[in-house]
Amino acid sequence: MKTFFNVEDIGNLDQALAEAKEIKQNRFGFQKLGKNKTLLMVFFNNSLRTRLSTQKAALNLGMNVIVLDVNAGAWKLETRRGVIMDGDKSEHLLEAIPVMGCYCDLIGVRSFAGLKDRDYDYAETIVNQFVQYSGKPVFAMETATVHPLQAFADLITIEEHKKSKRPKVVMSWAPHCRALPQAVPDSFAQWMNAADVDFVITQPKGYELDPKFVGNAKVEYDQKKALEGADFVYAKNWSCPGVTNPADYGKILNKDMNWTIDKQHMSWTNDGYFMHCLPVRRGLIVTDDVIESDHSLVIPEAANREISAEVVLKKLLESL
Amino acid sequence: MKTFFNVEDIGNLDQALAEAKEIKQNRFGFQKLGKNKTLLMVFFNNSLRTRLSTQKAALNLGMNVIVLDVNAGAWKLETRRGVIMDGDKSEHLLEAIPVMGCYCDLIGVRSFAGLKDRDYDYAETIVNQFVQYSGKPVFAMETATVHPLQAFADLITIEEHKKSKRPKVVMSWAPHCRALPQAVPDSFAQWMNAADVDFVITQPKGYELDPKFVGNAKVEYDQKKALEGADFVYAKNWSCPGVTNPADYGKILNKDMNWTIDKQHMSWTNDGYFMHCLPVRRGLIVTDDVIESDHSLVIPEAANREISAEVVLKKLLESL
Amino acid sequence: MKTFFNVEDIGNLDQALAEAKEIKQNRFGFQKLGKNKTLLMVFFNNSLRTRLSTQKAALNLGMNVIVLDVNAGAWKLETRRGVIMDGDKSEHLLEAIPVMGCYCDLIGVRSFAGLKDRDYDYAETIVNQFVQYSGKPVFAMETATVHPLQAFADLITIEEHKKSKRPKVVMSWAPHCRALPQAVPDSFAQWMNAADVDFVITQPKGYELDPKFVGNAKVEYDQKKALEGADFVYAKNWSCPGVTNPADYGKILNKDMNWTIDKQHMSWTNDGYFMHCLPVRRGLIVTDDVIESDHSLVIPEAANREISAEVVLKKLLESL
Repeated sequence: MKTFFNVEDIGNLDQALAEAKEIKQNRFGFQKLGKNKTLLMVFFNNSLRTRLSTQKAALNLGMNVIVLDVNAGAWKLETRRGVIMDGDKSEHLLEAIPVMGCYCDLIGVRSFAGLKDRDYDYAETIVNQFVQYSGKPVFAMETATVHPLQAFADLITIEEHKKSKRPKVVMSWAPHCRALPQAVPDSFAQWMNAADVDFVITQPKGYELDPKFVGNAKVEYDQKKALEGADFVYAKNWSCPGVTNPADYGKILNKDMNWTIDKQHMSWTNDGYFMHCLPVRRGLIVTDDVIESDHSLVIPEAANREISAEVVLKKLLESL
Repeated sequence: MKTFFNVEDIGNLDQALAEAKEIKQNRFGFQKLGKNKTLLMVFFNNSLRTRLSTQKAALNLGMNVIVLDVNAGAWKLETRRGVIMDGDKSEHLLEAIPVMGCYCDLIGVRSFAGLKDRDYDYAETIVNQFVQYSGKPVFAMETATVHPLQAFADLITIEEHKKSKRPKVVMSWAPHCRALPQAVPDSFAQWMNAADVDFVITQPKGYELDPKFVGNAKVEYDQKKALEGADFVYAKNWSCPGVTNPADYGKILNKDMNWTIDKQHMSWTNDGYFMHCLPVRRGLIVTDDVIESDHSLVIPEAANREISAEVVLKKLLESL
Repeated sequence: MKTFFNVEDIGNLDQALAEAKEIKQNRFGFQKLGKNKTLLMVFFNNSLRTRLSTQKAALNLGMNVIVLDVNAGAWKLETRRGVIMDGDKSEHLLEAIPVMGCYCDLIGVRSFAGLKDRDYDYAETIVNQFVQYSGKPVFAMETATVHPLQAFADLITIEEHKKSKRPKVVMSWAPHCRALPQAVPDSFAQWMNAADVDFVITQPKGYELDPKFVGNAKVEYDQKKALEGADFVYAKNWSCPGVTNPADYGKILNKDMNWTIDKQHMSWTNDGYFMHCLPVRRGLIVTDDVIESDHSLVIPEAANREISAEVVLKKLLESL
């Protein structure tokens, strides 16, 4: 594995889940792989879970870790050729990225969608530059359109808690006070489509995700109908993906609080589990009683971030 | 030892001092204990000595260290239930703290007193939430009311320099231009009361510390009388603890420069040592000649922060 | 080696280059030296290359690394004696620096020239205080007037690419939109004067470097004449060093774009290599085609920063 952005990158999904199970029982068993290897974590945006869990996974593998916080405002990279750089951009990406590649063996990059230019975001402009110019394997720590370490951790969590061979998993849009990127729902959809689950997406009209992530998922606009019989309810807000109307990209079209997951919503399910990637706004996405119930998996999902990261780092190290 | 906030937590004080002495001679002798164990240091406030010395101590023990700087302004945690989180608080402590606990074995927390709400500060609201919800052993890297790593380092320093079996130790209030918390004097009083020393507190009227920290200490409002015969002078400013008048909590009641420790003050002592936890404002707390004299212990105290932290981390690791 | 600021500190230059060559083939071969040794990196200014490469070098040697970012604005150190510290300076350097020395074995310091007070900058006031008061070996991670880790990496790169025993190396001033310090050209001049090369400096009138760095270098104000026959072109901007007119210190005297290194400039050389320490402003210092050509050494120079740092750290460790 030379990069990690999409579900295909991890190879056979059943084998990856088996590897996750093995690593969870034996986190420190692969330190020969990481010895004298350095992970560089580049953050263009803030992070709590990703920062901690990825560091922990790398340390489990015996790696060295260097964390670089790039203040996106302060360190603007020039991307054009033929320009006189006499403005606020003090370095060109064609130098900055190969230089970062000099001092490490693997690079993780976090760079959120700006939500202003759909084409720029969906082209994954920033991380593709890292892939092209760093000379080192690159993996996503949440990019403009994907957050695969989260989706993989979610899949591990579903695998650990499922009560039937092919559970019903419903990803439900929920309201939020700020415009959020689509990276988490995009990746979750992509991974669920690849997994052995019955996957349904439910959302208000206008919130359709990009077709390349929706794939063959069933889309159901009636939230109640979608949730009926669900084994897992994956709540998440996202801003308008701009599929039907590109001018709406990144906007908040709807704050309908009827979509907030409460006890009544959960009563429609098959005694289902509640899931969310965190951080979560209580009262908007989910009510206190649901997230605090014994059917809430939010903390196990977070804990599995260490495991998904360790599997991914291990596979990247094995391919060096 | 499952938590470290108060002097009782360390167990027998003589044994702890003996362990400190042993560790100071053999800092790298306990690395089996720390192997594959991760310390998470969470800072809600700035730090120089605590940040460096605690990291150093953990590295001495062979631990991995992850440092998390929480910008108190940017990352506000919701603490109430039943609220719609549509304001500036993007995460609830009931998720954030267990998540942090997922990725480490021990947690150190720095969270200063806000000095606005005495009940909130003295209830140790923030760190108690870490104890309750993180699922991991928690220790203080200076909380609202205690700074035990400092007090333990101070006691080690006194032990190393005392010339009699039961030295006289005087903690003297001194003036300052800003309102400071009471965590350092609170802990120092608590530890001195537990140690085999003759302990006196001297301060202007109105600056009485909370009775639970004063304990059986002798309180003397006449600074000269207090300092007479002192073997160690522990200077420190603190703002009004609000014991006699809660409305004065956190205020500066007095800037009397007669309390500044100068050569004359030291002349009243038994050829005593000068101590301060640092950082110190010269000219307000102490004069240049006193802090630079060969009877100043401020640098040895700071150096012993590595030792007190290593003893505490070792004890926490042994209890895992 | 107890400090590392000037070329003399490294000892015999041929031996140092031989050691660099050996380390580049065997980066992890000296981990016994670094075991249980801690490097403290103190940054008063931002850093990308120095931060990453020095960390990487220390990790190669098996050291522990602690990074301290000092916000120069927020943490002002008092340097005078006899003053009442009731202003914005909360700590005196006479305490802060020895304290930092308590928790490490080696200290690297980055502290740029302020470009306001030539005497203060050229006296290296800040780093000399670290040398005097920390009690530990100190090395430059770019100071007010020197950046020896860069100059050493540049020399290694020249050694690796030279086609004759004594190549011609030309350092050429180039225009820039901001006032930059002289640390890089100062050190480069110092190291080239000590190396077995034919060294020429070319710059507009008024940009003369301090004589102690110019040494015996040939100075040629006609850029074309200087570049003729050059094997290596080392482009760099610097602000006025204030040698002929101290009142001009730190000012931009000239933005003449005829000094920008383009293909025509390179055509005057002996099929020469282009060098720059990075970050570089394209269009001002150098054109896209020159920096992107197969004769550009900017990335190899950056990669050799890991090597120069490892040689220096190794020598400092050997002298402990």
